[in-house]
Order: sequence, then C-alpha cells, then structure tokens
Amino acid sequence: MAKRSSIKASEEELKAYFADLAAQNLWPLWTLNQSKEPKSKAVPYIWHWRDLRPLAMRAAELVGTKEAERRVLVLSNPGTQWGAANTLFANIQVVLPGEVVRSHRHTNGALRFIIEGKIGYTVVDGQRYPMVPGDLVITPSWCWHDHANESDVPILWLDSLDAPLVRLLEVGFREDYPDEIQPPGEGNDNSQARYSSGGLRPAWEPAPSTPHTPMCRYPLEQAKAALDRLAAAEAGSPYDGIILEYTNPITGGPVMPTIGCYIQLLRPGEHTECHRHTSCVCYHVVEGSGYTMIDGQRLDWEEKDVFSVPAWAFHEHVNSSDRPAIVFSVTDIPVKRALGYYREQSSPSGRQ
Amino acid sequence: MAKRSSIKASEEELKAYFADLAAQNLWPLWTLNQSKEPKSKAVPYIWHWRDLRPLAMRAAELVGTKEAERRVLVLSNPGTQWGAANTLFANIQVVLPGEVVRSHRHTNGALRFIIEGKIGYTVVDGQRYPMVPGDLVITPSWCWHDHANESDVPILWLDSLDAPLVRLLEVGFREDYPDEIQPPGEGNDNSQARYSSGGLRPAWEPAPSTPHTPMCRYPLEQAKAALDRLAAAEAGSPYDGIILEYTNPITGGPVMPTIGCYIQLLRPGEHTECHRHTSCVCYHVVEGSGYTMIDGQRLDWEEKDVFSVPAWAFHEHVNSSDRPAIVFSVTDIPVKRALGYYREQSSPSGRQ
Amino acid sequence: MAKRSSIKASEEELKAYFADLAAQNLWPLWTLNQSKEPKSKAVPYIWHWRDLRPLAMRAAELVGTKEAERRVLVLSNPGTQWGAANTLFANIQVVLPGEVVRSHRHTNGALRFIIEGKIGYTVVDGQRYPMVPGDLVITPSWCWHDHANESDVPILWLDSLDAPLVRLLEVGFREDYPDEIQPPGEGNDNSQARYSSGGLRPAWEPAPSTPHTPMCRYPLEQAKAALDRLAAAEAGSPYDGIILEYTNPITGGPVMPTIGCYIQLLRPGEHTECHRHTSCVCYHVVEGSGYTMIDGQRLDWEEKDVFSVPAWAFHEHVNSSDRPAIVFSVTDIPVKRALGYYREQSSPSGRQ
Amino acid sequence: MAKRSSIKASEEELKAYFADLAAQNLWPLWTLNQSKEPKSKAVPYIWHWRDLRPLAMRAAELVGTKEAERRVLVLSNPGTQWGAANTLFANIQVVLPGEVVRSHRHTNGALRFIIEGKIGYTVVDGQRYPMVPGDLVITPSWCWHDHANESDVPILWLDSLDAPLVRLLEVGFREDYPDEIQPPGEGNDNSQARYSSGGLRPAWEPAPSTPHTPMCRYPLEQAKAALDRLAAAEAGSPYDGIILEYTNPITGGPVMPTIGCYIQLLRPGEHTECHRHTSCVCYHVVEGSGYTMIDGQRLDWEEKDVFSVPAWAFHEHVNSSDRPAIVFSVTDIPVKRALGYYREQSSPSGRQ
Repeated sequence: MAKRSSIKASEEELKAYFADLAAQNLWPLWTLNQSKEPKSKAVPYIWHWRDLRPLAMRAAELVGTKEAERRVLVLSNPGTQWGAANTLFANIQVVLPGEVVRSHRHTNGALRFIIEGKIGYTVVDGQRYPMVPGDLVITPSWCWHDHANESDVPILWLDSLDAPLVRLLEVGFREDYPDEIQPPGEGNDNSQARYSSGGLRPAWEPAPSTPHTPMCRYPLEQAKAALDRLAAAEAGSPYDGIILEYTNPITGGPVMPTIGCYIQLLRPGEHTECHRHTSCVCYHVVEGSGYTMIDGQRLDWEEKDVFSVPAWAFHEHVNSSDRPAIVFSVTDIPVKRALGYYREQSSPSGRQ
Repeated sequence: MAKRSSIKASEEELKAYFADLAAQNLWPLWTLNQSKEPKSKAVPYIWHWRDLRPLAMRAAELVGTKEAERRVLVLSNPGTQWGAANTLFANIQVVLPGEVVRSHRHTNGALRFIIEGKIGYTVVDGQRYPMVPGDLVITPSWCWHDHANESDVPILWLDSLDAPLVRLLEVGFREDYPDEIQPPGEGNDNSQARYSSGGLRPAWEPAPSTPHTPMCRYPLEQAKAALDRLAAAEAGSPYDGIILEYTNPITGGPVMPTIGCYIQLLRPGEHTECHRHTSCVCYHVVEGSGYTMIDGQRLDWEEKDVFSVPAWAFHEHVNSSDRPAIVFSVTDIPVKRALGYYREQSSPSGRQ
Repeated sequence: MAKRSSIKASEEELKAYFADLAAQNLWPLWTLNQSKEPKSKAVPYIWHWRDLRPLAMRAAELVGTKEAERRVLVLSNPGTQWGAANTLFANIQVVLPGEVVRSHRHTNGALRFIIEGKIGYTVVDGQRYPMVPGDLVITPSWCWHDHANESDVPILWLDSLDAPLVRLLEVGFREDYPDEIQPPGEGNDNSQARYSSGGLRPAWEPAPSTPHTPMCRYPLEQAKAALDRLAAAEAGSPYDGIILEYTNPITGGPVMPTIGCYIQLLRPGEHTECHRHTSCVCYHVVEGSGYTMIDGQRLDWEEKDVFSVPAWAFHEHVNSSDRPAIVFSVTDIPVKRALGYYREQSSPSGRQ
Repeated sequence: MAKRSSIKASEEELKAYFADLAAQNLWPLWTLNQSKEPKSKAVPYIWHWRDLRPLAMRAAELVGTKEAERRVLVLSNPGTQWGAANTLFANIQVVLPGEVVRSHRHTNGALRFIIEGKIGYTVVDGQRYPMVPGDLVITPSWCWHDHANESDVPILWLDSLDAPLVRLLEVGFREDYPDEIQPPGEGNDNSQARYSSGGLRPAWEPAPSTPHTPMCRYPLEQAKAALDRLAAAEAGSPYDGIILEYTNPITGGPVMPTIGCYIQLLRPGEHTECHRHTSCVCYHVVEGSGYTMIDGQRLDWEEKDVFSVPAWAFHEHVNSSDRPAIVFSVTDIPVKRALGYYREQSSPSGRQ
C-alpha cells in the first residue's frame, strides 16, 4: 500500500505560491476540476425554416454582393455563440437570380445541400457541377470554387463547413482567385458518369488519390432510390433507421477528411433507440416532420429545419407523421475516428 | 576496369563436373539461357461459341450430375494444354433445368458470367443471388457455393477461376459441404440494394472487411448504363475504349485479390492503340463483332466467343461492325500488381 | 463579367436586421474579418529550468499526494492562459522518493520525458517500464497507467499531453483504476527487446494493431547513438539539423495519433534555416545551449528549459555553444496530417 | 432433395466426345482428380556444405568470369529439377579475390546471405554496401546491382531469388547495365545509420515509398544481439523458437513483396512443435547442428547446410547440440499472404 501523504499548507502559503506560479506563467494542475466525461459547450438547438427563410431573403434586400460576397447567415449555437456545432458550421446562404459568387479557396472543407431554387452551378477546380434542390455539392479544402444562380428565382442552400474546427486548430488559410470566376472548363463535370455506379469504375485512369471525393455532386434522387430500396428490405440502424453515408467512391471513406455526410430515412411512426457518441451532428430535414429528444429536451422539426445535437448528448429520433422523413446530416466523425477519439454508447436506461 | 578471367576447361572436364553437380542435385546457372523479356507459354487463341455451345450441350446428353457434378468444359490453351491462360481458367459450364450443383468450397477464387438461360441462382456463404444472362456472379476463395437452374431451359455460363495460379503456387484446398446445398437463408441477397449506388453506403454496419467484394452479383444492365453514359462523354482508354473495372464497393479495389474483372465498350468502327502488359487476359464477347490483333495474329470474334491474350503480347482491338461491341474480360492484374510485377508498354511501332 | 450589386441599406436598417438575426441565434458571416493565414493565439515563450525546478520542488513541500495525486505544474502560454501550446500540454511533474502515483486512464494521450532523478517506473496496461533520465515513456490514450519513484531522490519529468486538443474537441473521458495501482504483471516490459532493432521483428506474434506504439519506452542512449551516427554522415534537415522522429516500430508512423515526438542534434555553431508550419511545437533542451528566433523574437535556452513555438510562426535554431545540443520536442503534426491541414513554408526572406 | 441424374453413355460415345473436345482445345473438367489439399512437387531435401563448398570451388577452377559472369550453383530440388523450392532459388555463388560481378537488373527480387569470406561489396542502385559473413544483403526487383570481392580469399554466399515464381508467372525481364559497374556514388551506404534503430527515423526526409526495404544490408551481429535478448526473456514461437523477421523499417512489412527473410535461434536441446503452412521455406544453418523432421523424413543439418521444406509439409526442428543453433530462412509468405492463400495448421497428432 503506497503512502498517501498529506501536507496541510496554510491558505496563505498556497495563495503566495500560486501567485509565484502565475508570475512565471504556470498553474497547478491539481486545482483543475476534471470531469469523467465530456460536456459540450454547445447545446441542443433548432432553427426553423419559417424563421430562417425570411431572414435570409431580408439579407438579399439589405446587402448586395459588393457588401457581402457570400450572403450567409451563421446558425449560432446559443452555447458557444459561434457555429451550429462545436466543429461545424451549418449556415444558410442565398444567391439571387443572376448573381455570381466569386471564386476563392480556403482551408475549410465545405459542402452545400440545396434547399430551394431552380438551377445554379458550382465550379470546383475547373469542373462545373449543376445544383438543383436536394443536391449535395462538395467543395473540399483548398479547392477553388465559385457559384452562380442561372435561374429566375433565388437559390437557398445549407452551407456547412469545418470552419470552427479550422479555427480551433489554427490552420486557416484563404485566397481569392485572380479572376472573378474560374474560366469555363471543358464542359460539365463528368464524375457522376464515372463514379455513380457502385462497384464499377473507369479503368483507363489510375484511381484519383485526393484526400477527398472526386465526385463533388451527389443528387438526391439517387440517394432516395437507395433509401427506398433498403427500407423495403432491411431494418437499418436502431438509432437512425435506414441511414447512408455519402462516400468517396474511390476509397469507400468519407467525402472529406473532416466532415461526414449522411442521409437517413425514418419510416412513418418510427421511434429510434437512444444513444450518444463523441461526434456532434447538424441535421437538416429534407422531407417530413417529427421530433428528436436530446438529453431530455424535445426539438420538433419540420421540412427544411436545421438542428444541432452536441457531442456526447443522448438522442433519439421520432417520425411522428404518416409518411417517410428524409433527413440529411453532417458530423465530425471522420475527425474523431482519425484521432482515435470516436466513442459510442447506447443509453443504458432506454429511451428518454 | 575489372578483370574478366577466362578459363578454358576442356569439354570433358566440364562434362564430368556437370555430372558431379547433377549427382548432388545441383546445376550450373550460367548454362541457362535467360531472355530479356517474358515469353508466355500460352498462345493467342479463340474459342467460337458456334463450337462451344454444341459441345457443351452434348456434355449434358452424355453425363449426368452423378458423373459430373460440375459439367464444365475447360478451354485449354494450345500452348499449355491446361487453362485458357497462364493463371486463369475461362471455362464453359452448363446446368440443365431443375439441376442443382452441390455446395462446396475451394481455395480457387471463381466467377461466372451468365451467357444463356432464363433464371437460376447461386448461393454464396448463405446469401442467395439470382443469375440471369449478363450477370457477373462472384464466388470468392473458400466461400461455400452451390447453384441451381430453376427455369425450363439450360443455363450456360463462362466459368472463370484462378485455378491455374493456385496450381502453380501449390495452395489448393477443397471441401464438400456437409449437405447437398446450403440451407435457405433469410432470403435473397441484399448487396445490390446496399452497394450498387456509387458514393453511398449503409452506415449502420462497419464496412465489411473481407478480402473480396461483399457484393457478389453485378447485373449487366447497370454496367451497360454506365458504359453508355461514359461513351457519350469521354474518350476512354486508347487501348480499350470505354472500359470499367468491377470493383469491391467497400475499398475500390478488385473484386478478388487474384482476378480482375472488366467490361468494355468499343464504339462502331473503333480501332484501339496497341500495347502489352504482364497480365494475361481472357475475353468474352457479350455483344457485337470485331477482331483483335495479338502479336501479329488476327482473331475474329463474334457474340459469346472467348479468346485469350497471353501476358506481354501486343494487342489491339477493332470493332468492325456498326454497333457497339461489349466485351467482358478477366485478368490477373491484381496478382501482378500485388507482387510488384505489373508492367505495361505501348507499342513503339504503332498498330500491327 | 458578373454583376456586383451594391445595396446601401441604412445603418439603422442593418442594426435592426442584425438584432433580428441575434434574436434567432444567427449572425451575418460577411461581417467577419477573415485573415489570409492563421495567427495562433499562443505566443513564443520560454520557461527556464532555473525557475521551474524550485517551483516544482516547492509544490512538493506544500501539497502531498492526498491534495495533489499528480503534482504537476502546467506551463501556461501567456497568449492562451491554458497549455504551453494550442493543442499540447508540456508540464513539469515531480514525484518524491517512495511516492506512488495512482493508476487511472483518460482520453488524453500522454508522454513523459524524464529530466532528473535516479530510477522510477511507469506501468502501462500491466507492463512495467523503468524510468531513468532521458527516457521517453508513452502512456497512450485510454491505457491504465501509474508511476512510482523507487529511489531516494525526487524524479522530475516533462509531462506532455494532448489535453488542450481533447478539450477543444470535447472528447475527454477519465476513469480511476479500481485499485491504487495495477497488479504486478509478469515482470518488466519486454518491448525494448522486441522492437528496438530496426528492421527486425518477432515473427511469432502478429504485428500489434494498436493505434499507438507497442514500445512505450525509448531510452535516450539509443537515440543519442543514432544521432551521433547520422551527424557523422549526413547534413540532416536544413531547418532542424539531425532530427529523428520516435516512431511506432510496427507501422513506422507516429507514437500516438495525436502527438509526434522528436529528438534533434544541433552541431556546435549550427544555425538552421528559417521555416514555419501549421503545427505547434514544444521543445525541451536535453543538453547544450543556444537560442531560437521565433517571428523576430529571440529565446535563449539552456539545459532543461522548455519553450513553445506557435503554429505558423517562422523559427530557426542556433547552437551557440561549442558542443552538440540535444533537443527533444513534441508536436501535433500527426493531427494536422491526418486531417489534411499540414502545411510548411521556407522563409522567403531567409533567416530572421 | 435435388435430383442427381445419371447418364450411362457408352465408353465409345465418351471417347469420341472427348476426342471432339480435344479437337477444339477443350477438355472435361470432371475427369480431373482434385485433391483435398496441396501436395508440392518439391520434396524435403538437404544439401550439405561439405558437398557444396568443394563443388563451388571447383567451378572457380573451371570457369572464369567470361564464361560465367555469375558463378552460381543452383540447388535443384529432386522433385522439380528446378530450384530449391517451388517459388524460390537458394543457390551458392562464389566470387574470387579481385573479381567483379558486372552490373545488371532483373524482375527477380534477390538476396544474399554471406557464408564465407573476408570483405566484398554490393552496389544497389548506386549505394555501396559492404559484405561480410553473416550479412543479409538485399537486391530488390529491378534495381541495378554489381558485386566485388576486395579481399584475398574467395567469398561464398547463399544466393536466393524469387526466380521460380517469376518463371511461373511469366514476368521476367532483365537488362545489363551500360557499363561494367555502377559509378562510385557519394560513398558508402548510410541506411544502417538511418534505420537500424527501432522506433527512430530520420525526420528530414519523407519515408521512402519503395515496395522494398530501403535498408539493403542487415548485419548478423545486430540480429544475434536481438535473438539473445529475446531468448533471455521469452518463449518465442512453439514452432520456431526465437524467430525474427527481417523487415522494411519504414512499413514494418517484408523486405520485398515476394520473399520473407527470417533468422531464428533454437536453444540447446529445443524440440519445436510440429506444423505446416502453405509457404515453402529454404533454411540455411548459420551456426550449430540439429535435425528437422519433414513429413516423417529426418534431415540432419550442420553449419552452412541448406535444406528445403515444401509447402504444406509438416515440420519440426530439433537443436540436438548443447549450444544455440542460428538458422536463416527465406519463404514466400508475402506472396501467399498478399493473394489470400496463406494457411497454417498445427499437427493434430503432435510431433512426428
């Protein structure tokens, strides 16, 4: 049995000592209260589309592209006053008919999920991708990208980035493209033709070796078809119903090293089991309505709403309607996995 | 300058010495004539369907399933008298209406490409896969597999295995299943639903970690759609036109560690460039007609023919018809790549 | 040329609008000032051993193991008031003769570099490692570990952890071992015997597949011998002289997924080139003296000092003495690399 | 229950049918007798140094370097009349004082284990490696290599190559260097200095990414020290005693993709358990004496003997002397593993 020594220094002694430490830019670790498990500074929160849309449209009235190259509203978690989640932005951007969003690049990996509009495009490193509602469009770290709205109605999208992570890790670079937009390339992007058939791949090129997906656009139609096929045949995840990860078709890994993208189908009436994990998640409701219980708090959601589940918060989903709910989400699972920090736990006490 | 010594031993001395060596199970390496590049023992060869089909059907008249559990004709390369290529079998198998091919497993990795028939199935480790013409069905190394023809017409398929490689490497095991067939599982295989959407994958399970594809059936329809999409947009390979590799959707790698499977589209009139590589290839014509030049020899091919291109033989393909040709092929590229033996060369003198 | 619209909303309108946004937990991204490159909140700073040692020894007078299970002084960067660097702690711990530091585990990956003392030990998941000055001892994430001082003099060590990263990412778990210390295992650790010969590895076991090194102790003697061998033969790095990374002998990768450990030799009079990178570094001087220029600031260092170089700060090292300087360092390079955030740049204007 | 049809075709009918098949270069798979497990064509065999050495020296009397650039005796397995094992050569080469072996390269991966001599060197792609008895020297696939004996006594070495595998797979290329030898480089190789410390690696260069080890020489002294350290502390393998694999220090993998190299220590009196695996092995006795039981056959070995254990042959080793036996060996384990063909089995009936 090891000896546990106790020394009863006086409060004055300790106070003087701590002051000496501070004078040398030191502090005593043993005075730090260390908890047994993480508690995110972010809180469960939901932003309703009924509030978001008018405010986004109002931005379009108040600021032009000269004032705001990117007319983006940051969904700010009340717990952090920064992004929607600890490592993730999940913002709303609006682009008016005829507007062009000038080309730049940055360390931040980014993605768009198109909520509303007719037709626009994003150019990523010279490849031109169309954008229609339901599309997931990826603009990976340090790739040039510009956007345009070529229709006669506004385009609104969910604009998610790993910007809070980049800020925490102090690695943010950004650069403007020499010209306003990237020059027209050889035509529209062809990655859908190349990679959208699972288990088939062009053999005339070596597999692309970028750290991110070479297929920067994932249409909703294909995802919904896959969800429907699987919903007819499988139970899926106890915590998420039928849930698909958008993957890099070359490696099977996540679309970017810092953000995982998912789409899930909750069957009418489905009430999932409760769990938690060390990744934060931002959800965007594509179709349907229901609610999510997060650490005892109920967030009711409808189409196009956005809500945030903090890391290590228990959560369970309920589709309270009589038609399938389709929910898109972004997480930092790839970060937590790469660093050995991912952990998951079923609720020992069942549903909330 | 190093000295090059010459010693003029008499022929008798050398003869006696070589005999002494032989007596000790030794031989002198310097008497071996070593060539500068490989020369396969296999030769370019084609088996025409017009010959293969009647002989396969004749087998069905002459031997029952008691005599020949697997009624398979081995396409035997005239240069080796063994398989169609140095490391690959590309055989023809026939299964009559109502017949069942009993379950077994073996070291050999195998695949079927269905040529003719209505409907059958293959069970692979308890998963039941339908088989219709054009399907590629994989039965990986050491997986239990049985087949059945549930229709009223014969099924014929190309039956390709790495059996010659297994024989060269002396690693062949085989085992019969305790029962005739594997018990009915929980229903039909679901891997198409799970993995056939490129860039989307079920997130409720960890990615399967088998050394082979978890999707054991690849329907022709999907491959043709992908070929057509790409033919409309890209030039493809100078040597192979629009060519797709069937891949393991989890890793992006080959379907098995020892056999690579490909399907290609040659446009009407297309005449590819000439090249060679250290992998042997067996081709099976799915649709169309044309010819292939192999080391100066012309092989004219039509639908359902099978032909063999030896390793390091120059070859170029010609679609001499006015409609697209679709050609399936198997190679040992994964073997050559894994061992660092893959090498490729354009013909320095252009087409043959 | 795309149109750049300008809308001159009044200040009142904007103010009211921003208030509306805030009421909905939103803020306008375009008001954020985004810099072109990262600027760490941490600043260049040095803690001298002449200050650290007395304060550490004073802790041993004022608090016992009952008050402070781990008697650790946190080196607190003046820019952040937290750890020595943005993602890293580089603390000083003191253990008195006969003291035992009770067993626990935590998400934090940790390491010790022994500065002073005779002999102690660390037990990591049941393996007992001796600790003498110069040793690098690794206690990876979520491995049980306890320490003891079995000599008659205090042991002091550099105690480095990824704790600030764990805090930023909100993934910290901790747990006390059921007993005071881990039970005596089958004897002393044998990983030095197993893995310390480069290019040789026990073949009777599969290679360990932990995400961290299976060799938890790296003695200084071996590192110095390697540094001396290389210093006699090679120029080494223009920025760091002869510098070695401590690696996982099984994979060649870093010792832990979140911390890279290095040891370097600067020749007498050596003045390295100037560069910067997106990783922060904490240095500990093992032997010798010199100075480091960091973004124009000169930090003079002597034996046992600890200093911090923030991410993306230009730095160059000078050994101003007439004997070799040996410097140990920890970085978050593995984190930045895993996430695709690592970037390095030579100073375009040469030395500072 | 599936129907098993039997068709009693007459012998004449079948004979005629088989002739028809042969005429079309086909044969009936069902007539092939397929065994349940592999049976190597190679047989257990030993070549004694007392026989090998005089015959090697006799070669030096009978043929000069003009007649035999490489004076190599092929150890020819009586079962195959080709190399010592199915996929491996294990030959004996002799180089006389002052002789130079001209530079060339080939697909074959090769290695030397120096048996006798004073000092020579091998140049591999411009790097000069000394060669003294006990050294393992690697000349990987397609690397230029030349040798010289710079001493006043002959050098003899074990010369092992994957040449039989290259022949089976029909991938052999070879090329002579434009000059007699490679030009003197910048001095002696430095890979020992760089990589021989386990868990430490130069950080000023990216890790070499060749498919083979960047450290082409492994001295015996280091291996013996590691064997002794481990023999003092661990039981080792039940089948092989204390056995180390020579590894690529960058990846922890085998030294070449086609050959695994091992060195083992059998304690005085040690009698290992019996097992078999799908890899063939060639052993070379460095020190000591004993015997090996292989499928019931006893091969007694002494210093410098070479013996061959075929794939899937049961074998167990006995050190029948009173001092440690040190045995070097080469296998094709990396080939069998890469292709998914490696399998291992303990003898169910114990020792032979």
